[in-house]
Amino acid sequence: MLKHLRKLVWQANLDLPKHGLVTFTWGNVSGVDRDRGLMVIKPSGVEYKDLTPDDLVVLDLETGKVVEGELNPSSDTKTHLELYREFPALGGIVHTHSPYAVAWAQAGQDIPCYGTTHADYFYGAIPCARHLSQAELEEDYEKNTGKVIIETFRTRALDPVAVPGVICHSHGPFTWGKDPAQAVYHAVVLEEVAKMALLTRQVDAAAAPAPQYLQDKHYLRKHGPGAYYGQGHAGR
Amino acid sequence: MLKHLRKLVWQANLDLPKHGLVTFTWGNVSGVDRDRGLMVIKPSGVEYKDLTPDDLVVLDLETGKVVEGELNPSSDTKTHLELYREFPALGGIVHTHSPYAVAWAQAGQDIPCYGTTHADYFYGAIPCARHLSQAELEEDYEKNTGKVIIETFRTRALDPVAVPGVICHSHGPFTWGKDPAQAVYHAVVLEEVAKMALLTRQVDAAAAPAPQYLQDKHYLRKHGPGAYYGQGHAGR
Amino acid sequence: MLKHLRKLVWQANLDLPKHGLVTFTWGNVSGVDRDRGLMVIKPSGVEYKDLTPDDLVVLDLETGKVVEGELNPSSDTKTHLELYREFPALGGIVHTHSPYAVAWAQAGQDIPCYGTTHADYFYGAIPCARHLSQAELEEDYEKNTGKVIIETFRTRALDPVAVPGVICHSHGPFTWGKDPAQAVYHAVVLEEVAKMALLTRQVDAAAAPAPQYLQDKHYLRKHGPGAYYGQGHAGR
Amino acid sequence: MLKHLRKLVWQANLDLPKHGLVTFTWGNVSGVDRDRGLMVIKPSGVEYKDLTPDDLVVLDLETGKVVEGELNPSSDTKTHLELYREFPALGGIVHTHSPYAVAWAQAGQDIPCYGTTHADYFYGAIPCARHLSQAELEEDYEKNTGKVIIETFRTRALDPVAVPGVICHSHGPFTWGKDPAQAVYHAVVLEEVAKMALLTRQVDAAAAPAPQYLQDKHYLRKHGPGAYYGQGHAGR
Repeated sequence: MLKHLRKLVWQANLDLPKHGLVTFTWGNVSGVDRDRGLMVIKPSGVEYKDLTPDDLVVLDLETGKVVEGELNPSSDTKTHLELYREFPALGGIVHTHSPYAVAWAQAGQDIPCYGTTHADYFYGAIPCARHLSQAELEEDYEKNTGKVIIETFRTRALDPVAVPGVICHSHGPFTWGKDPAQAVYHAVVLEEVAKMALLTRQVDAAAAPAPQYLQDKHYLRKHGPGAYYGQGHAGR
Repeated sequence: MLKHLRKLVWQANLDLPKHGLVTFTWGNVSGVDRDRGLMVIKPSGVEYKDLTPDDLVVLDLETGKVVEGELNPSSDTKTHLELYREFPALGGIVHTHSPYAVAWAQAGQDIPCYGTTHADYFYGAIPCARHLSQAELEEDYEKNTGKVIIETFRTRALDPVAVPGVICHSHGPFTWGKDPAQAVYHAVVLEEVAKMALLTRQVDAAAAPAPQYLQDKHYLRKHGPGAYYGQGHAGR
Repeated sequence: MLKHLRKLVWQANLDLPKHGLVTFTWGNVSGVDRDRGLMVIKPSGVEYKDLTPDDLVVLDLETGKVVEGELNPSSDTKTHLELYREFPALGGIVHTHSPYAVAWAQAGQDIPCYGTTHADYFYGAIPCARHLSQAELEEDYEKNTGKVIIETFRTRALDPVAVPGVICHSHGPFTWGKDPAQAVYHAVVLEEVAKMALLTRQVDAAAAPAPQYLQDKHYLRKHGPGAYYGQGHAGR
Repeated sequence: MLKHLRKLVWQANLDLPKHGLVTFTWGNVSGVDRDRGLMVIKPSGVEYKDLTPDDLVVLDLETGKVVEGELNPSSDTKTHLELYREFPALGGIVHTHSPYAVAWAQAGQDIPCYGTTHADYFYGAIPCARHLSQAELEEDYEKNTGKVIIETFRTRALDPVAVPGVICHSHGPFTWGKDPAQAVYHAVVLEEVAKMALLTRQVDAAAAPAPQYLQDKHYLRKHGPGAYYGQGHAGR
């Protein structure tokens, strides 16, 4: 079932350690088949070197039930499901504990848009989602992690296509894209701009974000109808 | 003697440079056979590339005497022995000079639990053991290093299974686990969370630890009877 | 057309990821043939692993029109053209988003000459060019980026041979040299001295630049008629 | 001439990039034959990948004249000669621009002995030698760099065997040892402890050096008649 999507999700999972984003098993990628209403995700706690496409777990997007696979799905599965249900543009989701993104998450601060590297892929600051309350955590930790991410985007009126990622307070980053590969791409970008933003603060603790018109220019020369970066396919 | 344990300890020693935790010979791993009352440890000052399972030194856990091996055991041998004697759950111990853990040790500060990466493996802050007094150092430096680590855990009522490591003031980290491989795993985790904690402080010098209920949740979803991370074997 | 120059520019582009200066496609190198009035540059958004010499785009230096090549040239093409037109000594230009150079650029500060590593290649501070105004950006972003770099050098009376690079506020570095390989060399140096300068500030936020006579000595023992570093060919 | 020493010096030079200590050609190693009064050193500005034992340059230790070799010797040759003449225990010398050592040098501060990693190899702080005066620089820059290093050790009553390295203000590190390999070993240690010291300051800007009795213990368990680290050969 879903042989092609399994392969894409498997490859995207292997790309996480290749890009230096994960230690041990600390990350996961999923992908979705909207037509069939199915999600494919990494099993929990399996080492990347041992992972095969057949190990991946297939779940029903609506019910959240496993429909294929013998292993337990990622412990973050319910977070992925919530995000796919709420944001129809998402085709792939990534979660990692990459260290610079985690640093901003642990400090509980948005990552400011200090320059064009950031603006090329994320339109404005990368938001930090609030802590879950103890009640939310006890009710359903992983599901409510997704709910709080969604609340962050709704409250701030953010478009998840223009801001393809978030950091969760005291936890780490989630990124997404039109497919699993683009979600991984955005995970690499988020980590790189998180690093650059921290180094920028170290040069000048009072550094200001890039002017809005420069942020607009860089985002829009790569995305949307007026884009002129690349060879006709925006985003990579 | 102890052919299987020798191989596990040898492999765990080789994993230290593979994970980037040691420069030159600055690290050592031991393992213990509780039934026979024997400890296997790296010889002192031997380069990892030259190390064979036969080079390892076997000592009597109770007397501390070498029972097999022609090379001198690690200069930290008495520290390992003290920890095994006091903490019966330990099956392997690692000592390194990994740089971020050393930085916290040299600053003499506990590593705060700023987030879930830390909470997944260490329940609460990673303690910094106090300096030995000059008298303690002159009496028996390595043995009393072990005694001061034990004092740290007893005084603070810490469980060495829930907090599988420590940093020693002006020195560096010791970690442990149920076997040598898990001790190395915890050495990697400690270095990674030490790095993340330092980066967190650089984003915000006044960053607060993760809420206690979030620390509880993450530690307990990986450990103990209610664990649901992984495929039925907690801790990895 | 320009088979030799194509090969040099292609090789120089491949050297960017080899030196760890670029993530994904975030960088480009060009070279110029002054006799024929032609510039060769990387196509926009093509991955380095897929790049062949035939993919490079040839443009007329004066008109800026593509004269050979089926792909879109780098989105930074007009910046390169402006610099070649104004500075006749330039034979190659590099743009990257290397993280330490970007950090200084995002903080909007010149990189001070703190020591001999810097002084060996850059005579004095590496300047940070100002933001474009919104009007300049809207008129022609990439061309005016070149104009503002040129303004920076003219206003400060800097010689682009003695200061073979610049950082642009909220953006990143451009470097250059007598040929594409030397431009890449200077991109590596700029990133390395940007890193060293940031670390220097972390040791002492009030660190002072190197004495002028030491800067003079190091620059001049490598460059100009009295140079005595190397085997008779200055600069490498 | 000096076939064996040439090979040792050549190998030690190749070890610099292998340990990540040098970018491009920014480093050099020499070795000395005390019986014959000859020094072997890397030629100036030659890339490590192209270097052969035959490229090395042999100089008379007393006169400083080249006695064998067609290439120009390292531009730092006179500094090496001064150190060998003054410190008879030196068998090899290394100069690099490794970034953490350079950061302390550019800040003009001694590297404090914050812990045992440092104390195992350097007895006390690693000194930062003062700037040359303009007159000293103009008279003979490289020779007087050696003179100022010697002055630093004489003024502070430091033993170059117990403190096998120095950093020069606004410049970078020199290290040494009983042979070229040990000089490289100490270059690696110096860079590693420079990094750890900077990270320590970042955890706590007011961190204190390790207690003197701990510094004594670690240095003396590795060096001198009471040493018990390793297999009977101190220092590695």
